[in-house]
Amino acid sequence: MDKSTLRWNGWGLCDAPDVLGDNAEGIWQWLGSYFGMGTLPHTPAVALEQASLPPSRLNASQQQELAAIMDAQRIVVEDRERAYHARGRSYHDLLHLRAGRLQTAPDAVAYPATAAEAQALVAHAVENDIALVPYGGGSSVVGGVTPAPTSAQRAVITVDMALMNQVLDINKTDMVTHCEAGIYGPHLERCLQEAAVTLGHYPQSFEYSTLGGWIASRGAGHQSNKYGKAEDWFVAATLATHKGMWHTETFPKSAAGPLLRDLVPGSEGVFGIITDAWVRIHELPEKREYRAWFFQDFESGVNATRALLQHDVPTAMVRLSDADETFFYSVLHGGADVAENGPMGFCLMLVGFEGDAATVEYGAARAETVLREYGGADMGASLGAAWLETRFETPYLRDPMLDRGLGVDTIETAVSWERLPQLHQTVCKTLTEVIAANGPQNDTKSIVMSHLSHSYRTGASLYFTFVFPRNGEDAIGQWQTIKTAASDAIVAAGGTISHHHGVGEDHRDWMKTEKGPVANALLHALKREIDPTGVINPGKLLS
Amino acid sequence: MDKSTLRWNGWGLCDAPDVLGDNAEGIWQWLGSYFGMGTLPHTPAVALEQASLPPSRLNASQQQELAAIMDAQRIVVEDRERAYHARGRSYHDLLHLRAGRLQTAPDAVAYPATAAEAQALVAHAVENDIALVPYGGGSSVVGGVTPAPTSAQRAVITVDMALMNQVLDINKTDMVTHCEAGIYGPHLERCLQEAAVTLGHYPQSFEYSTLGGWIASRGAGHQSNKYGKAEDWFVAATLATHKGMWHTETFPKSAAGPLLRDLVPGSEGVFGIITDAWVRIHELPEKREYRAWFFQDFESGVNATRALLQHDVPTAMVRLSDADETFFYSVLHGGADVAENGPMGFCLMLVGFEGDAATVEYGAARAETVLREYGGADMGASLGAAWLETRFETPYLRDPMLDRGLGVDTIETAVSWERLPQLHQTVCKTLTEVIAANGPQNDTKSIVMSHLSHSYRTGASLYFTFVFPRNGEDAIGQWQTIKTAASDAIVAAGGTISHHHGVGEDHRDWMKTEKGPVANALLHALKREIDPTGVINPGKLLS
Repeated sequence: MDKSTLRWNGWGLCDAPDVLGDNAEGIWQWLGSYFGMGTLPHTPAVALEQASLPPSRLNASQQQELAAIMDAQRIVVEDRERAYHARGRSYHDLLHLRAGRLQTAPDAVAYPATAAEAQALVAHAVENDIALVPYGGGSSVVGGVTPAPTSAQRAVITVDMALMNQVLDINKTDMVTHCEAGIYGPHLERCLQEAAVTLGHYPQSFEYSTLGGWIASRGAGHQSNKYGKAEDWFVAATLATHKGMWHTETFPKSAAGPLLRDLVPGSEGVFGIITDAWVRIHELPEKREYRAWFFQDFESGVNATRALLQHDVPTAMVRLSDADETFFYSVLHGGADVAENGPMGFCLMLVGFEGDAATVEYGAARAETVLREYGGADMGASLGAAWLETRFETPYLRDPMLDRGLGVDTIETAVSWERLPQLHQTVCKTLTEVIAANGPQNDTKSIVMSHLSHSYRTGASLYFTFVFPRNGEDAIGQWQTIKTAASDAIVAAGGTISHHHGVGEDHRDWMKTEKGPVANALLHALKREIDPTGVINPGKLLS
Repeated sequence: MDKSTLRWNGWGLCDAPDVLGDNAEGIWQWLGSYFGMGTLPHTPAVALEQASLPPSRLNASQQQELAAIMDAQRIVVEDRERAYHARGRSYHDLLHLRAGRLQTAPDAVAYPATAAEAQALVAHAVENDIALVPYGGGSSVVGGVTPAPTSAQRAVITVDMALMNQVLDINKTDMVTHCEAGIYGPHLERCLQEAAVTLGHYPQSFEYSTLGGWIASRGAGHQSNKYGKAEDWFVAATLATHKGMWHTETFPKSAAGPLLRDLVPGSEGVFGIITDAWVRIHELPEKREYRAWFFQDFESGVNATRALLQHDVPTAMVRLSDADETFFYSVLHGGADVAENGPMGFCLMLVGFEGDAATVEYGAARAETVLREYGGADMGASLGAAWLETRFETPYLRDPMLDRGLGVDTIETAVSWERLPQLHQTVCKTLTEVIAANGPQNDTKSIVMSHLSHSYRTGASLYFTFVFPRNGEDAIGQWQTIKTAASDAIVAAGGTISHHHGVGEDHRDWMKTEKGPVANALLHALKREIDPTGVINPGKLLS
């Protein structure tokens, strides 16, 4: 992954095309008018040269010591690299990066090429009290890769795993692949698909995130109904830790006590650096079918989704947008003309099936029966095909919004079916109200929308997106106020603080509350045991 | 569960009928002749009155202190209760119980009726340095409920959860039930089935084991392909611990760090006493279909099973016996006449489908195609029906075998598909050889047989049963030698020391090896944090 081609302060390729295409101008005009802002303002990011990047605390002799572990060229102290790694890619991160506030930049970026090098780096960090930040694709939206403030003396090295990008083995008897953790999504799938298999994990960040990052954050891909969430397809890992290499259990199942490997997904690098992992694979789907369905209201769609799951209908994906999201995406794809009609009230569901022909045909036929039962109307295959084609474009919308005085953020949760409707309602209401009271205008308008994107027998995840006029004078404070209100509302409604984004710095306090005192004490005991001096990813997950 | 109706030194009801029925005499004669023992000897167990039960160390004032926590009638020091709870129900346990060696008996058995009482009992134990042994149905076959030897001063109380047997809630929206942990299998399923739902967890011990025990040991039921293993259907629990009540996470899914609830399945009571749990339920199956198939050899059957799993065919159960087990069960059900033919070489597979009619019909049709592809021959529904009807009878065979100078034990594992054939072969060979060299005769004969009983995309479990002439003079030593050799062979072949029996006292050393130093240190750190003085189930799991 050549980082010189990627934006150091935004999403993806520097020269990515405008994803709104011909609709762009109309949509910006519509948004300006919707928010009562007239023509949207021009609010560009500062250039790297104008940014305030503190000097690296890593002196020449320290760099030389590191060169004993790995090739000196792979210990990078160059400005752009340090700026690139200063933060993840949340809205909050972008506010800082775009303003050129780079106080969190690491003192160096190290690129280990082998597990042995990663382990040597950990040992060196322990011995010299240097903080390490494990880094995959850096796409965290919860402050998961932001170097935490340290004392003036304590250097921070970000450990970028990008050179550890090999598929080591594809075992088609066990349907498991063994890969280095720094492999990016597209490279991994290319290697697997050449062997006619797939991991099937396609998170929104797929293009710029890694296997190790997916595991560390308990990520979820679009087709999680078939392929599972990271903790489901995860089989085993090797971690470079303060206490040496940790090889987790590898068995298909075991009753030999609690499985400690279950602590790896979601560990966010605080126990050690994942150097390689074994994960489940599937045969490349013989057939794919994605269809769109319309529902009269969100509740009917939710009930239909629940029925699909609880009646064992084999879907790959069920993605149900509420009326506001259905409307917003119809504007994005259809242009500003579509906006004139306003929200129509109905809700779009995309249902996907993947696998061998028999599974897909059976699943699609059963789903049709169930969805009709709940009042669904079949809208054919074209919307599903369009979604499949453009699904990785959405993150690219954020930078142009930030260039135009807007703010946009997302939060997500998982909750039981029983509590889901109430949570949906209360979080949308909270977001609307908190934005109204904390924007640049009186009663600031917002776009608040949601979809259900991952479903289980006992509940589902909800994902909220909100767009709003940015408070230019205190954008960070505005974000913090909105984030806190929405997170409190999620927790009060019985949801978890995260279904797949993770904890990082941003969700620490809520995680502490939801785990409770006994579980928190256990987590801290684990951390004390495996990293007694707190060298590995300090400030993350635990508070 | 009225324990006065149950054998204190054997399996199940005191007055259980002879499961061999009319075949009994022929089969005993055949076994005597097979083992070269002539007429099998008469080796009855000693009566309770002849057993050596040490006096309770719990003095009157200690009993009175406990009576402040719970009704004095529920602190039992009576002989039969203490003998009943002296051990689990492994072959090793039965050797001790039948010989009247009751040195491991607890000083008292406490029956808490509420979570608050269980928590008060833990607090009392901490304060007075009394060891507690959490106890469900007591069916452990790995020494999981045997009170460990303590100092002369330290009393041991077994905490029998049988009074905490209520279904607290059945939530058909979330398809989750909340139950007290001491509820026995039949009672639980009766309550659930009255509400038209099922947990679907039917381990071999179903009749005499509890929800809490299933979770604590990571148990597996016959239909685990559909309903999952304990760690799969487990949603959340409450535990009474040294540090107070622990309420685990309850969300359908979460990325809020590692889920500490994942440490509860397999914890075997060493972190605390599970007082109640939330578990997933299913609608009662509309349809059930169990069919038998014959395969030319074990390998073809294994490959067919793997294909079913990796092609997402929705089975409830796939149970494949090797040729020796197929033969042995045909003798048990068909009588000694069947034995004259000797093993025929073919292997019996029972395949079960459960669920709504559409799922069952689809699954059965797809399975038929796959099984034929691998050379399977459809033997119809009668063998499956017979198995369903008699499946809880097998454990009853053990006591009459022990009455007749024989020994019988089982071991099990899970292993990747790739390693499974080699493991099957090497463990069978090891068992045959170690029994030959350590029996009462020169080259002692044995019956060694195996089946594959739980299958996953990446591997499966194998279950081995072995019958042999008991070494009357040193039956314990003989058992230990066989157990060690077979366990070493499993681990050497890449299997886990247990797929669903657990660890207890018997598998501690092998678990330590398979976890490795980092994971072991983490487990000990968890134990130190949650039970710093080691009052809860000392001697189990950790070594």
